[in-house]
Amino acid sequence: MKNPTRSGGLPDFQRDNIARMEGYLPGEQLNDSSIIKLNTNENPFPPSTPVQEALRKLEPTDLRRYPDPLSTGFRSAIAQTHGLNLDATIATRGGDELLRLVITTFVEPGSTIGMTDPTYSLYETLAEIHACPTFKVDISRHWKPAPDFAAMMNHINARLILLVNPHAPSGSLLPISQIDAICAEARGIVLLDEAYIDFVDPALAYDAIPLLARHGNLIILRTLSKGYSLAGMRLGYGLASPGLIAPMLTKTRDSYNLDTISQRVGEAALAGRDESRRSWATVRAERARLRTELAGRGIETLPSESNFLLARIPNSVAASDGPDAHRTYLGLKDRKILVRYFSTPALADRLRISVGTPEENSALLAALDDIRAGK
Amino acid sequence: MKNPTRSGGLPDFQRDNIARMEGYLPGEQLNDSSIIKLNTNENPFPPSTPVQEALRKLEPTDLRRYPDPLSTGFRSAIAQTHGLNLDATIATRGGDELLRLVITTFVEPGSTIGMTDPTYSLYETLAEIHACPTFKVDISRHWKPAPDFAAMMNHINARLILLVNPHAPSGSLLPISQIDAICAEARGIVLLDEAYIDFVDPALAYDAIPLLARHGNLIILRTLSKGYSLAGMRLGYGLASPGLIAPMLTKTRDSYNLDTISQRVGEAALAGRDESRRSWATVRAERARLRTELAGRGIETLPSESNFLLARIPNSVAASDGPDAHRTYLGLKDRKILVRYFSTPALADRLRISVGTPEENSALLAALDDIRAGK
Repeated sequence: MKNPTRSGGLPDFQRDNIARMEGYLPGEQLNDSSIIKLNTNENPFPPSTPVQEALRKLEPTDLRRYPDPLSTGFRSAIAQTHGLNLDATIATRGGDELLRLVITTFVEPGSTIGMTDPTYSLYETLAEIHACPTFKVDISRHWKPAPDFAAMMNHINARLILLVNPHAPSGSLLPISQIDAICAEARGIVLLDEAYIDFVDPALAYDAIPLLARHGNLIILRTLSKGYSLAGMRLGYGLASPGLIAPMLTKTRDSYNLDTISQRVGEAALAGRDESRRSWATVRAERARLRTELAGRGIETLPSESNFLLARIPNSVAASDGPDAHRTYLGLKDRKILVRYFSTPALADRLRISVGTPEENSALLAALDDIRAGK
Repeated sequence: MKNPTRSGGLPDFQRDNIARMEGYLPGEQLNDSSIIKLNTNENPFPPSTPVQEALRKLEPTDLRRYPDPLSTGFRSAIAQTHGLNLDATIATRGGDELLRLVITTFVEPGSTIGMTDPTYSLYETLAEIHACPTFKVDISRHWKPAPDFAAMMNHINARLILLVNPHAPSGSLLPISQIDAICAEARGIVLLDEAYIDFVDPALAYDAIPLLARHGNLIILRTLSKGYSLAGMRLGYGLASPGLIAPMLTKTRDSYNLDTISQRVGEAALAGRDESRRSWATVRAERARLRTELAGRGIETLPSESNFLLARIPNSVAASDGPDAHRTYLGLKDRKILVRYFSTPALADRLRISVGTPEENSALLAALDDIRAGK
């Protein structure tokens, strides 16, 4: 057994792969209600009425006993929402827990996990924790995987392919036909991360649920963090064929992964879906307005089917202190507006801006004008 | 890459170690408030007044944003409770998440995890998920590890030793001096699972916290499930040297492992500690009464410093339908009283009975009398 010693003389018990890794860096969470927070893609509108009622009905004595280990009530609501059987569903602590469970259950340490570049940065972190190399396909030119994506994944023997759709951080949407083709061709599991699906234009009729009946290697991830305004609750779920759900549900999941309150809030949130749907329409309308307004200011954004825009900040001045995107990020922060800046080379000239309320978006635009004017 | 096929023709994507394992079986959680539930060691008294206030103050809009990823308020309360620095604490989803994090962070798949036999059955499950063999030292004779326990663990190169104290399912308490000696001798990490510590007789002056300053390989696990009547919330924490805490806190933990409500409830529960302490005294008094009453009925129990008793049910009749312990379990269940029966050979003649309210315990005794009388 290794027992390496650190410089200070204390033994370092970390596994090598853990010692090497950095850890995921969450977006800034500032405890200041005066801040306009457009950096972590939260829904700017409050949770629905049924959620409010579920909270009001909580009795302290309900917390004394262990929760239902299988989250049956919440999962029944999930099954009903999507027209699936109960055994095609698993309820998780946000989408993040599902990602971890999929890797733990189906990927041998050392096996390769495939993904696009860029993508949700947590994927890489989870692969590192599991001692898995990653294979990343650069999509920064068109923001969509090329038609040979699945073939490449098979070529490198990807046991698992992580695909976020709508894509983060670009917001671009891969059509169902291409997802269908990827699932059909891939020999590994395809995890389709639909964290932002609630903001897709309904006119596009995007719906991946029917693919589940055709592809035994497809797992769909959903979260209540964005669409249902419940980022603070950590609620998500997975949809897949029962053969993929069962080992996660009965073996690798923490026995009581969802607490009593979460289960009730999750069920209530799905009951309040029509109410939340109205907030999604507002976000879409504001997304369109924000895009037009930014374009009018020379700031190009990609077409987005999500609740954020990836904006390219043109380098208007020769700045010795880094790219304009970073200076704009700092300028907005000075004005108490948070957006997301990524320091990776492919994204160094961009800012990811969550769509806020009409008032928040107008404040953002005014702040950008201020910054441009050198105020 | 393997892609084994099941009999049905569908590919089975599970890892081999996952396919082989059974999964943890939680105690029965029946959704029937008329049942007297003495099977999962929940506290029979309600959560404290500060917890009730924290629930009352919840605002739905508080759930819209992501929680503090580092649970700073709850961890500050933990640090203050134990006189430790913040960087010696990690807040987790019950004790179970801490167990998983310790294994993920410090144990290579394939390394051996050491434990006693019997012990908390989840340990074996977590080892299986991580593809780790276990080495189990039989303690069913004296219910305490022998003095050569750490030497044996070193001999088989245990990277991690899982030790529950007070012991489950016997309730016996290992003295501090022996834990001190184990930590000093063991080359691996010692996880001291103090899930039931709140029910230890204060006259024993048991306190493992000072050991943290002496042993860089010690991690103490605590939970709010039992002592604080919050099994439904999934709240626990770990205490250790900052070198052991840091990689779990910044690398392997799910980024937002505790939701907004959990963090507030956890902080409130620690503020209400003195109130909960009174429930612990009642549980101890009832534990003593139950022990005496059971002894008067010929049912022997081990001395317990926990909130349960491990009772040996003497085989009074030659039963062809299994041991009397199992028949008693079924007889109690018929009478709407749940206790825990383990089917493992070492425990087949025993029942683990959680200490309930005075009324619940009296109902248990009356039901046992009924069963004996053949009613």
